[in-house]
Amino acid sequence: MAAQNLESIMVRIGIVGGTGYTGVELLRLLAAHEQAEVVAITSRAESGRRVDDLFPNLRGHYDLSFSEPDVAQLAACDVVFFATPHNVAMNLVPELLAAGARVIDLSADYRLRDAALWSRWYGEPHASPELLVDAVYGLPEVNRAAIASARLVACPGCYPTSVQLGLIPLLARKLVDPDHLIASAASGVSGAGRQAKVDNLLSEVSDSFKAYGVSGHRHLPEIEQGLGDVAGQSVGVTFVPHLLPMVRGIHATLFARLQAGPEDIQGLYESWYADEPFVDILPAGQLPQTRTVRGANRCQIAVSVPQGRDTVVVMSAIDNLVKGASGQAVQNMNIMLGLPETLGLQQVGLLP
Amino acid sequence: MAAQNLESIMVRIGIVGGTGYTGVELLRLLAAHEQAEVVAITSRAESGRRVDDLFPNLRGHYDLSFSEPDVAQLAACDVVFFATPHNVAMNLVPELLAAGARVIDLSADYRLRDAALWSRWYGEPHASPELLVDAVYGLPEVNRAAIASARLVACPGCYPTSVQLGLIPLLARKLVDPDHLIASAASGVSGAGRQAKVDNLLSEVSDSFKAYGVSGHRHLPEIEQGLGDVAGQSVGVTFVPHLLPMVRGIHATLFARLQAGPEDIQGLYESWYADEPFVDILPAGQLPQTRTVRGANRCQIAVSVPQGRDTVVVMSAIDNLVKGASGQAVQNMNIMLGLPETLGLQQVGLLP
Amino acid sequence: MAAQNLESIMVRIGIVGGTGYTGVELLRLLAAHEQAEVVAITSRAESGRRVDDLFPNLRGHYDLSFSEPDVAQLAACDVVFFATPHNVAMNLVPELLAAGARVIDLSADYRLRDAALWSRWYGEPHASPELLVDAVYGLPEVNRAAIASARLVACPGCYPTSVQLGLIPLLARKLVDPDHLIASAASGVSGAGRQAKVDNLLSEVSDSFKAYGVSGHRHLPEIEQGLGDVAGQSVGVTFVPHLLPMVRGIHATLFARLQAGPEDIQGLYESWYADEPFVDILPAGQLPQTRTVRGANRCQIAVSVPQGRDTVVVMSAIDNLVKGASGQAVQNMNIMLGLPETLGLQQVGLLP
Amino acid sequence: MAAQNLESIMVRIGIVGGTGYTGVELLRLLAAHEQAEVVAITSRAESGRRVDDLFPNLRGHYDLSFSEPDVAQLAACDVVFFATPHNVAMNLVPELLAAGARVIDLSADYRLRDAALWSRWYGEPHASPELLVDAVYGLPEVNRAAIASARLVACPGCYPTSVQLGLIPLLARKLVDPDHLIASAASGVSGAGRQAKVDNLLSEVSDSFKAYGVSGHRHLPEIEQGLGDVAGQSVGVTFVPHLLPMVRGIHATLFARLQAGPEDIQGLYESWYADEPFVDILPAGQLPQTRTVRGANRCQIAVSVPQGRDTVVVMSAIDNLVKGASGQAVQNMNIMLGLPETLGLQQVGLLP
Repeated sequence: MAAQNLESIMVRIGIVGGTGYTGVELLRLLAAHEQAEVVAITSRAESGRRVDDLFPNLRGHYDLSFSEPDVAQLAACDVVFFATPHNVAMNLVPELLAAGARVIDLSADYRLRDAALWSRWYGEPHASPELLVDAVYGLPEVNRAAIASARLVACPGCYPTSVQLGLIPLLARKLVDPDHLIASAASGVSGAGRQAKVDNLLSEVSDSFKAYGVSGHRHLPEIEQGLGDVAGQSVGVTFVPHLLPMVRGIHATLFARLQAGPEDIQGLYESWYADEPFVDILPAGQLPQTRTVRGANRCQIAVSVPQGRDTVVVMSAIDNLVKGASGQAVQNMNIMLGLPETLGLQQVGLLP
Repeated sequence: MAAQNLESIMVRIGIVGGTGYTGVELLRLLAAHEQAEVVAITSRAESGRRVDDLFPNLRGHYDLSFSEPDVAQLAACDVVFFATPHNVAMNLVPELLAAGARVIDLSADYRLRDAALWSRWYGEPHASPELLVDAVYGLPEVNRAAIASARLVACPGCYPTSVQLGLIPLLARKLVDPDHLIASAASGVSGAGRQAKVDNLLSEVSDSFKAYGVSGHRHLPEIEQGLGDVAGQSVGVTFVPHLLPMVRGIHATLFARLQAGPEDIQGLYESWYADEPFVDILPAGQLPQTRTVRGANRCQIAVSVPQGRDTVVVMSAIDNLVKGASGQAVQNMNIMLGLPETLGLQQVGLLP
Repeated sequence: MAAQNLESIMVRIGIVGGTGYTGVELLRLLAAHEQAEVVAITSRAESGRRVDDLFPNLRGHYDLSFSEPDVAQLAACDVVFFATPHNVAMNLVPELLAAGARVIDLSADYRLRDAALWSRWYGEPHASPELLVDAVYGLPEVNRAAIASARLVACPGCYPTSVQLGLIPLLARKLVDPDHLIASAASGVSGAGRQAKVDNLLSEVSDSFKAYGVSGHRHLPEIEQGLGDVAGQSVGVTFVPHLLPMVRGIHATLFARLQAGPEDIQGLYESWYADEPFVDILPAGQLPQTRTVRGANRCQIAVSVPQGRDTVVVMSAIDNLVKGASGQAVQNMNIMLGLPETLGLQQVGLLP
Repeated sequence: MAAQNLESIMVRIGIVGGTGYTGVELLRLLAAHEQAEVVAITSRAESGRRVDDLFPNLRGHYDLSFSEPDVAQLAACDVVFFATPHNVAMNLVPELLAAGARVIDLSADYRLRDAALWSRWYGEPHASPELLVDAVYGLPEVNRAAIASARLVACPGCYPTSVQLGLIPLLARKLVDPDHLIASAASGVSGAGRQAKVDNLLSEVSDSFKAYGVSGHRHLPEIEQGLGDVAGQSVGVTFVPHLLPMVRGIHATLFARLQAGPEDIQGLYESWYADEPFVDILPAGQLPQTRTVRGANRCQIAVSVPQGRDTVVVMSAIDNLVKGASGQAVQNMNIMLGLPETLGLQQVGLLP
């Protein structure tokens, strides 16, 4: 595309697996993206059904139906998003890359560089381990340059986005003990996807709160890989996710032991993220709420050192479906294609 | 403005009473409106405080602080919105109109044409009854032409919007008994405003449902006035509002007795609203949900004649803060100023 | 049991299908019932699993595991509750009755007296139509005497309980037009059961409201049968159920056209239900909320004639799992066994 | 009371400040307590109003109205509960004790032994500091014997109950670093009380999640005092409370660094609390949910050492209004009066 006038490009987009929440969220965001055109959205189960029949919020915005996955059609797209559970992308991506498409995978298939580690956590061999070295981990605040030239981007998980953005400055500056990080995070139920499971019925999870996956959540190795890269050494994280009785939002409360002398941590965070369009360090004393980023591609962060002791607390909030998934995917697309990074991503959070 | 190039206009906007939910919603919508510039937002209580300090979802979108109401400053605006409780606009509007501003009042002050009726329902004399005849009732689907030339628009209430849009075709076509209409409607708690009241605490209204105002809700005379205009005769409505354990959304379930022979009611509704950008008649068999219009300036409507009997049921859903308040206000602004009616109002509903 | 001292009886209870919400609610209520002992609870899917492993709120209250349904074991119980979807009881009940057990069916299998009508609404033949005449419809406020001598009680549905209790006095006294009754009712999601369905995920139904089943809900013929009995003639109801974004509670808003002269409707309701332990007519001006009956075997009712016109509005609230299901089932058991009707059913609603 | 037959005692109870959530919860619990009779409930604001008019869930359970506080009347009670904000009890209690009443204070007034510390956190002098040494901290699992002979019991805060019960075994056995404990806890909104505050409106806190009080919450010194007693040395806790979009429930996620060799922590917890009627250690692998203790006087706890590393995670769940307030208060009353500790407190949690 290099020679074209970027302003006139319409990016042809394919979406694999469009019936889940990251799929409909991609459609919501791309409807507001003036240079994006979704030309195919696949679903075996809903093939032939109009997209706006399944998701009536899209009525009037798309004249599109779900179709069977068709590699030739997808390969003809400029960008293909995978909004699928894990274990789908790793089987289809090699062919699409070979055909020249760029791929942005919202699933977990390419997030870990180590195929053996991936297999241990996902309980099966990786289908295309040779691509793990080429795949770029799509956290723009860390990997912007690599994303710009990538053919395959692995979008970070929702928890990993909120945890990493919250801890990066402390680890990069070696201010805290990297071996005993603590991440107590909570997610809205949409993070569990649009699957028919008793555990996610309103009657099971409404008006209640619980931890889950304490003994080992699949986002743990991803978090430790990402933070290890930033720290320049291996890190240890105790990660406890919780389920919130609400739809959207992730809030991470992060604890680390300070190992250096006093520092202006507020100032560090403000300067570290000063040029980031989608990371917002709140003024000292203000704390993030998931509702203030609802629907927005934004991570709001606050830092505190309670009682002036030696434990720093970082709180970060994102919308798990936006900065934690589909919004970050569009951000990656913009970077890959040389478009303005914020294109189509300027929505104000829906409050109240 | 007639002589200007409309595409280059930046409309200078003032908002009176910006600390409530319709105020922050105006700001959210206007941030996406390419020809709108908010130059003043008033609040006596929060004067001097940054808008994005109170509403952190607006960080990065506005560099604006609340100010004391200043008639001169407001009068210099092209449009002034009143996002206030009733009893504020009726005292300030005469002066602003005299100074040449256009006014869009989201409160109840100018919705009823009859000052005596207004006084009976609001318990006090009207402060500027002489303006009641000039004020245009801002339901574009009924009054588009009058709005276009209005200086003062009274935005409909949230319930009245959903009830009127649902019943208009039946009454206009005289298909139903106008004396015994029934409106069983339900609203999210944001409709009660951002006031400190025990009754609207989460602990009081979450996980519960109730009717309220059965003996007489202030939206009743507004509904009967509006439907009477359409019917060409007085109408009688039994209106029961309910409070939903959620933030946004109004759903009206409307019942009317058919008095004419069989008719294709689905077809009637589809044709009646065919050209309306913000009224969406759902395909037969599909029913509206408040979530599919969340954050969108849209009314979704379904009709049914259960069991083929003689009672027709209409269901209509809106976001009370958008098509039921601030979105409709922006729609009115666009019409008043000759801008494209949909400008800034194309947001896709936030689902899930 | 006739010869025994009633105070010393321990009623041996079997529950068929204990993994759903009415099953766990039966267990909750029976734990507080001093003369009840649950000796068997069946589930094919969870056979062998401890009840308190599936429902940890029961830890310390039951030392019981789910078992395969075993007719001999169930037949040895004094009472067998069916807390199953429809289409289970009608196949097992004949054998249990023949073996001498009393049966209280919480499902729909024996609610309609007319087998053909049942088949039309449930889409299959009835498996034991010969029992339909013997089955007693278990609404104690109507059928107390018949329940006392019944071997098979069909517990009313949740919506039918709230709608019938709300309309009975008006119809029995012939104060309203019986052909054009309107019931706009709303239920918490627990009414949809503990089945893995996308439609009932928190992410699908939280923070939203919708009507469903408008063209025909299976509770409609049950409502019309019950109200017809009371009215002494056929009645016509337009019944629109809605889904509330919460767990428990049904609220019915009922509209009827007055056809007689003025009447003290408040007084009528108060006297009609004066001796009913579980129907509570609220003082004039107070309206029911589902939260005030949460967890309680109680129906709270208010009546109003808005604006003094000719439409009466009745509002009734129950907990769908208690007075709408398991509590009413226990009430029926008490009546059948000659125990005090309120035994084990005196819980105070959980507010807030 | 020593000489009386305990089974025949009716305890005469006064409640000061009965219009809040702990007040109505006391009434709910005491309605099921066969030896309790509430003879007075005070409220200046609601004096003269029937209790069941304010709280309709109590209709039929109490024939009682709010009254002005009257020291003589209260002093004639066997037990007086204070269900007030802080700063009320400390002014009235001296007089009541002098008159011979027993007092159970649900507020913060007597929780800290150090008057200076109290003043620092509550911003005013303590009005009866001489009673701080006599007041017994009402956590039965620690202080049962002292409670039995106490005249004044200070009920623990809701967060402190969940945090202390979760950490006591580890600290008592000196298994963890006491200087760097971390408590990430979350509460339903009822913990904020029944005050008219914008911050607790449903529209402000529903469908959202946030931390608050990070720089210093008043429960911190109480937690550190209680845990210090158990540890036999001062302890340091980083305490971050969060607000959940729901009514009832507290969940604490607690992190501590193991400083001793491997240990069967699950076994330790099971044996530590084996005789406690209201602390329930879940089987290994099961995690607590706030809904499984909703309405019940119970703390459910799980322990885990994720990845076999050196950080132990404890999760504890209570209903903030029951084991975190009114239930614990009744438990204390039973102990003080020599009644069975579980009397009136056997409710099964309301699930779903």
